[in-house]
Amino acid sequence: MDLQKESLLLHEKFRGKLSIDVKMPLNSMKDLSLAYSPGVAEPCRKIHDQPEKVYDYTIKGNLIAVVSDGTSVLGLGDIGPEASMPVMEGKAALFKAFAGIDAVPICLDTKDPEEIIKTVNLLQPSFGGINLEDIAAPNCFYIEERLKQEMNIPVFHDDQHGTAIVTAAGLKNALKLVDKQMEKIKIVINGAGAAGIAIIKLLLNMGVKDIIMCDTKGAIYEGRQERMNPVKESVAKTTNPDKRQGPLEEVIIGADVFIGVSSAGALTKEMVQTMSQDSIIFAMANPVPEIMPEEAKEAGAKVVGTGRSDLPNQVNNVLAFPGIFRGALDVRATEINEEMKMAAVEAIAGLIDATDLSPDYVIPGPLDSRVVPAVRDAVVKAAQKTGAARIEILQSETISQ
Amino acid sequence: MDLQKESLLLHEKFRGKLSIDVKMPLNSMKDLSLAYSPGVAEPCRKIHDQPEKVYDYTIKGNLIAVVSDGTSVLGLGDIGPEASMPVMEGKAALFKAFAGIDAVPICLDTKDPEEIIKTVNLLQPSFGGINLEDIAAPNCFYIEERLKQEMNIPVFHDDQHGTAIVTAAGLKNALKLVDKQMEKIKIVINGAGAAGIAIIKLLLNMGVKDIIMCDTKGAIYEGRQERMNPVKESVAKTTNPDKRQGPLEEVIIGADVFIGVSSAGALTKEMVQTMSQDSIIFAMANPVPEIMPEEAKEAGAKVVGTGRSDLPNQVNNVLAFPGIFRGALDVRATEINEEMKMAAVEAIAGLIDATDLSPDYVIPGPLDSRVVPAVRDAVVKAAQKTGAARIEILQSETISQ
Repeated sequence: MDLQKESLLLHEKFRGKLSIDVKMPLNSMKDLSLAYSPGVAEPCRKIHDQPEKVYDYTIKGNLIAVVSDGTSVLGLGDIGPEASMPVMEGKAALFKAFAGIDAVPICLDTKDPEEIIKTVNLLQPSFGGINLEDIAAPNCFYIEERLKQEMNIPVFHDDQHGTAIVTAAGLKNALKLVDKQMEKIKIVINGAGAAGIAIIKLLLNMGVKDIIMCDTKGAIYEGRQERMNPVKESVAKTTNPDKRQGPLEEVIIGADVFIGVSSAGALTKEMVQTMSQDSIIFAMANPVPEIMPEEAKEAGAKVVGTGRSDLPNQVNNVLAFPGIFRGALDVRATEINEEMKMAAVEAIAGLIDATDLSPDYVIPGPLDSRVVPAVRDAVVKAAQKTGAARIEILQSETISQ
Repeated sequence: MDLQKESLLLHEKFRGKLSIDVKMPLNSMKDLSLAYSPGVAEPCRKIHDQPEKVYDYTIKGNLIAVVSDGTSVLGLGDIGPEASMPVMEGKAALFKAFAGIDAVPICLDTKDPEEIIKTVNLLQPSFGGINLEDIAAPNCFYIEERLKQEMNIPVFHDDQHGTAIVTAAGLKNALKLVDKQMEKIKIVINGAGAAGIAIIKLLLNMGVKDIIMCDTKGAIYEGRQERMNPVKESVAKTTNPDKRQGPLEEVIIGADVFIGVSSAGALTKEMVQTMSQDSIIFAMANPVPEIMPEEAKEAGAKVVGTGRSDLPNQVNNVLAFPGIFRGALDVRATEINEEMKMAAVEAIAGLIDATDLSPDYVIPGPLDSRVVPAVRDAVVKAAQKTGAARIEILQSETISQ
């Protein structure tokens, strides 16, 4: 049976992937009077007196909403909120399976950014964090930015930052192999969607000086008129210092790194041949990468990563979001800031030591059980250092399980 | 240790009452590829083609939101959304424990009815039903009315209808004991909040002709000027046919039934003595009833019910909402209509047969395991009969467990 049919049957059999269960005893009248009326009045009163106590007496501190409008789902595009439910429910399941986080799929019946922002704001009393998912660019940038400003719980658009963090971790390790420095390399990113923009921000923070982003009209540079928007304007200002113009095949010449968040076949063997020696390629188009690893290597690439689980160096967000939210929730962080993201990059990269590092192993596997605790610990420290932590570290029951 | 302290410790120990768990296997790369990318694309595509399939492939069909703005919580009043979380989480836990329904507490950071209506509408893609909870009158009437019109999933304000349904079931059985008829009795309801209004509507539907509602200004009658609002105007039109005026102690004279949804001590022994022979009293103020059963009986009452678990004939909503939603979800009902509520009344009352019926046993106990299946079956039938059911009955896994 093929994977798709098997997946369909499995979804039908279980009617989804989540179950909401009761963790406090509820078997006798005594239990009922403690968990519900009249005993429940006491935690209510305490929270009314001290709002922060909601973290002590309710699920809020371990509960996140996986919020989507269904406008940019997997490789499927704008399929709407109902059709995005299987993905959001799956994401929620991953949060639980990987980091013990309780997560609810919240698929919203609107594409209006202001309605999404308003709604998510109103959900704040019940949730300890917000994971935005599969919201199309450029709305996703605006929505995340506004929510980060307006809410005092972590808001994280995983399509942007999850991919950026794992890519950056892979790049960091790949550079060790080819003995090049972040500050000196030249990077070309193909694709100006959510992930591409986030990768640029993160890499600039990590010291990269020379990045060029290409969209379907070629290199983005300051002064370009065609197909620009506020986000691309900002990219033009902070990247492409030499204001190079032209299509991908021209700007790729001499590049050390290609990062693809675009579409199948966007990078050819011929282009790879024009890159600098020991080139590094992350070809993350799904399900078919910009170039297959074998071809890229034949053309001279040293390290190749993709989004696929059946190929080496899989850039899989599951390496980032569970540990990041686990850490953020465990210190009741007010946000997930740049330092916390960079700490996650270091933690993921740091799991592969010099002796194990190889062109086919610059990124840990998605089921590597060391990843979540390492990311969580690093994120906790960064949150404390930057003042994002609201409490001393909380012993996370789940990580220690 | 007293109940309140014990409840507090229990809430702190478990950090709330719910846990969101994974019901599909998620242990291997194969599992991940079926539950998440790339396999999950297939159920997404199917739902995109046929929106109704969201019920087959996701949790939606068994998932309800317990929505509150925290403005009228238990006996605590307007304590805000965070402080209402323990109650909403408790309610969600009851849904699971009693009827196998997955429920999420959604406490909204607004008291604006339009914002609440908009938000709940936008949540529709993820949820199979909406349970409104602890929203103050008169907003609760307007919010429920609008949501019922605008949404195509069941919307049910439990504080209104749950209480009304269980009270009506108890009254039905009590009338058998004293050999009186719905059509001929005179009822006085004290308290013009959500529950009182809903009780009136339901009892009128069940054939009662003579009801008087009292608020703090006495009987509500057509033409009264003091402290009226649109809801009370509507009460004035449909009740109190003789336009009687005056305080509770005057209009109670000769009444067959007193229903209290007001406050401790509102009904005195003297007032009960003026009621007709074999009077019936439901004194549901929490935690202290309008009159204690012993006192009421000394003054001549035949049947007394309260909201308390330590006294006979407890009017507990848990007899109604789990079975009602179980039935509604099992036929993917578009609404919970009056016929479905009346069917629930009959089902609850019908569980006590003539030989068991006694003044201290007109309502089944909250842990009586016959209640949920009986209510569910009755609601399913009523939904099918009235066209509210969207599918043939679905075998509910949980009820049969």
